[in-house]
Amino acid sequence: MGKKDKQFVSEITPMEVDFPQWYTDVIRKTDLVDYSPVKGFMVIKPYGYAIWENIQQHLDRRFKETGHKNCYFPLLIPESLLKKEAEHVEGFAPEVAWVTHGGEEKLAERLCVRPTSETIICEMYSKWLKSYRDLPFLYNQWCSVVRWEKSTRPFLRTSEFLWQEGHTLHETYDEAQDETIQMLNIYREMAEEVLAIPVVIGQKSEKEKFAGAHATYTMEALMHDGKALQAGTSHNLAQHFTTAFEITFLDRDGELKHPYHTSWGVSTRLIGGVIMAHGDNRGLVLPPKIAPTQVAIVPIASHKGGVMEKAMELYSKLKESFRVELDDRENYSPGWKFNEWEMKGVPLRIEIGPKDIENNQVMLFRRDTLEKEAVSLESIHEAVGQQLEDIQNNLLLKAMKMRDEKTYYVKSFDELKEIMEKRPGFVKAMWCEERSCEDNIKAETGVTVRCIPFQQENLGDSCPFCGKPAKTMAYFAKAY
Amino acid sequence: MGKKDKQFVSEITPMEVDFPQWYTDVIRKTDLVDYSPVKGFMVIKPYGYAIWENIQQHLDRRFKETGHKNCYFPLLIPESLLKKEAEHVEGFAPEVAWVTHGGEEKLAERLCVRPTSETIICEMYSKWLKSYRDLPFLYNQWCSVVRWEKSTRPFLRTSEFLWQEGHTLHETYDEAQDETIQMLNIYREMAEEVLAIPVVIGQKSEKEKFAGAHATYTMEALMHDGKALQAGTSHNLAQHFTTAFEITFLDRDGELKHPYHTSWGVSTRLIGGVIMAHGDNRGLVLPPKIAPTQVAIVPIASHKGGVMEKAMELYSKLKESFRVELDDRENYSPGWKFNEWEMKGVPLRIEIGPKDIENNQVMLFRRDTLEKEAVSLESIHEAVGQQLEDIQNNLLLKAMKMRDEKTYYVKSFDELKEIMEKRPGFVKAMWCEERSCEDNIKAETGVTVRCIPFQQENLGDSCPFCGKPAKTMAYFAKAY
Ligand SMILES: [Zn+2]
Ligand SMILES: [Zn+2]
Repeated sequence: MGKKDKQFVSEITPMEVDFPQWYTDVIRKTDLVDYSPVKGFMVIKPYGYAIWENIQQHLDRRFKETGHKNCYFPLLIPESLLKKEAEHVEGFAPEVAWVTHGGEEKLAERLCVRPTSETIICEMYSKWLKSYRDLPFLYNQWCSVVRWEKSTRPFLRTSEFLWQEGHTLHETYDEAQDETIQMLNIYREMAEEVLAIPVVIGQKSEKEKFAGAHATYTMEALMHDGKALQAGTSHNLAQHFTTAFEITFLDRDGELKHPYHTSWGVSTRLIGGVIMAHGDNRGLVLPPKIAPTQVAIVPIASHKGGVMEKAMELYSKLKESFRVELDDRENYSPGWKFNEWEMKGVPLRIEIGPKDIENNQVMLFRRDTLEKEAVSLESIHEAVGQQLEDIQNNLLLKAMKMRDEKTYYVKSFDELKEIMEKRPGFVKAMWCEERSCEDNIKAETGVTVRCIPFQQENLGDSCPFCGKPAKTMAYFAKAY
Repeated sequence: MGKKDKQFVSEITPMEVDFPQWYTDVIRKTDLVDYSPVKGFMVIKPYGYAIWENIQQHLDRRFKETGHKNCYFPLLIPESLLKKEAEHVEGFAPEVAWVTHGGEEKLAERLCVRPTSETIICEMYSKWLKSYRDLPFLYNQWCSVVRWEKSTRPFLRTSEFLWQEGHTLHETYDEAQDETIQMLNIYREMAEEVLAIPVVIGQKSEKEKFAGAHATYTMEALMHDGKALQAGTSHNLAQHFTTAFEITFLDRDGELKHPYHTSWGVSTRLIGGVIMAHGDNRGLVLPPKIAPTQVAIVPIASHKGGVMEKAMELYSKLKESFRVELDDRENYSPGWKFNEWEMKGVPLRIEIGPKDIENNQVMLFRRDTLEKEAVSLESIHEAVGQQLEDIQNNLLLKAMKMRDEKTYYVKSFDELKEIMEKRPGFVKAMWCEERSCEDNIKAETGVTVRCIPFQQENLGDSCPFCGKPAKTMAYFAKAY
């Protein structure tokens, strides 16, 4: 047995035993990512990057369909710009990387590696905007950002990550608000229809909102371990930055005004969400829409006459419509290959051997249900298309079921504590919306307000945590 | 007249008068790019970025067709890694940006913002590679890099630019050499077939090769002002880095060996090349394959009954196959719009007014030839497709003609000096290949060896610059 075989058979820690270890095992063994020599910075390997490319492709199309254009702003931001919006600098300064030297020379002013680009973009917008006729500005950027993190976990929290950041300007508050919600809905649709992850959408509390925002909206997903993942945010920044950066335009009425402003982003963190929402003790389970390989063809007894020819014929046929791999490696057994493709979360596996060929059929294996069935060679193309669609839908249904089973109502602080100890998940509860109450919940239980959902329910009149009058219903959870 | 109109009618400096000013005028007036508050860092605006996206799309497809996969490596590289390959650090250390602080803390080791990623990638490859069975490694990365430049010009030389960098490992020298040349050919094909820019391909001199390379290959293009642009490079790095980074694999014969290594890249510099190879005194001239807008429809007397309806109908029809804009802005005259679309280099303009509709036709204007013809509404779709193809081909032919007219042979140093003074361009000459000769030519004339072309000609036996025996024919030019 070669070195690779040994690596392979060493087990993935079962998620019930140690969820963080399960996560670490899965991402390493499936070649999504690797640790780099710089602490907290990860290398995204081809298999992980291909997932990101599929997410990008979907989102980029949706952004363009809704009128947005891509551009690119500098990586480095002068310290003086970062400081222009007071809340913003307070939020980000502790976690930025500082460039102090260019070549041999010490810089007159420190530059930070962008942690997000509101400041540099607003500086440019203040030069570009003249008249209401120029509005709206609908721009997006795909790039990497750096936020110095003390403790990191691949995809979920790293000192550098890939993302997109949209930055728009509008004539009125209402238009900015509409844009904020539109983009949140594009994220939600992507999460549900592409990643097969159901999300709760709503507004962040004052404590949890983006540094400098008027209002932050979020989509929150639930992971297998009952912890929440903030999977995307969209901010109505109102005139906070446009005032600080003196962005003005001549309005229809001849008055100089500050425009209204939004920003919104999702990142490679979504890949962490996919792993933790769909994965199982065999490894990854990837939704077909983002799986780098949708179908793996494994020949059985490939040395026997006709097997490789038939497998290659099948491969050529399927590859016109699907992302297919033909696993023709000679130094691995079919059983080993089955395990590997399962671990890598490939939605469908086709097994083809001499007996199958005799019967003019193949065996089709589904990663989500672990079921195998014989399919005739004539109908394999159609069956693959059908099953990929089924798997995509089934994963969303399974994830919704999981989330619903882990969603609770509470009417007292004790109930919250008990749930978080014994069966963590989303907790719906009425809430007073006060910061001191929120701080207290977090201090005692580590639980945060995930969002005030758009879809409200009336569960009572008083806040179960402090007894004050309730203003709203919120989702509470421990979070990544 | 509004502020925008005034900006517009101020002229583009004719290229014969002041070529650098012509370039600056064009890029600013056509909204490709803007200067940022950080000296030497540019903002790529949507119109410029869309050109980059079209280049990316073509190359990414070609990379994948030839078996390469994308991944992502960290932005920041520890100083100790940069220092591992001696020539490499000497070449790059003077122009890197240094991160010294993460948040409030001073770092134990400085990190440089990647100027190129050989070092961090080799560090990872040394962990990943075990056996000859793992080879080849065929990976690419799309990202931005930072090189601290003293004097900068948008797209051509900036302290940050966007690029792709491919990094591959191979079992043998020959395989690495084949890869190096294959990728150079993919670049050449892209330059000629997509950018419509003819290039000379060949090898760099020892002086001009990449810091740490065994051999550097290049494609060199000629600009309107007779200066050369290095438009893409592909390096055979042999075992320079793989030895320094102790990358080994167990070969078929049971021996531990260092693999052979290549890297190759093109950048947003290509956009500068497109501007300077095709542009004219009216502004940009964009090849249809990369033009963000291929066809601009300008309605004439749009308030008259039926005009806007017909224009919109045409727009809907054409947009299924082409990148089309319908210019329905109300506060600009058709004449103003014509000028603007010409300046922005849009390959085709369609004018449609009441008279045209009466005659069941439109006027079709070509940016490259400035010719206008009537086309019947029935055949407009076909005509647009045909003309875009014609324009793409014509631009390449024009650029080849320009280059050939500006390519000279010299047999003496005086001839070189005279040409460079009076009618700069590519100069072909025999060469001794000695560094002292090369240094001397550069010191006296500012001319560098652009490449030793694959396609050799025998122009004599001695070096016209120093009189020593000639070893090869080379291309000489002043360069960006
Ligand atoms: Zn309360
Ligand atoms: Zn010489």
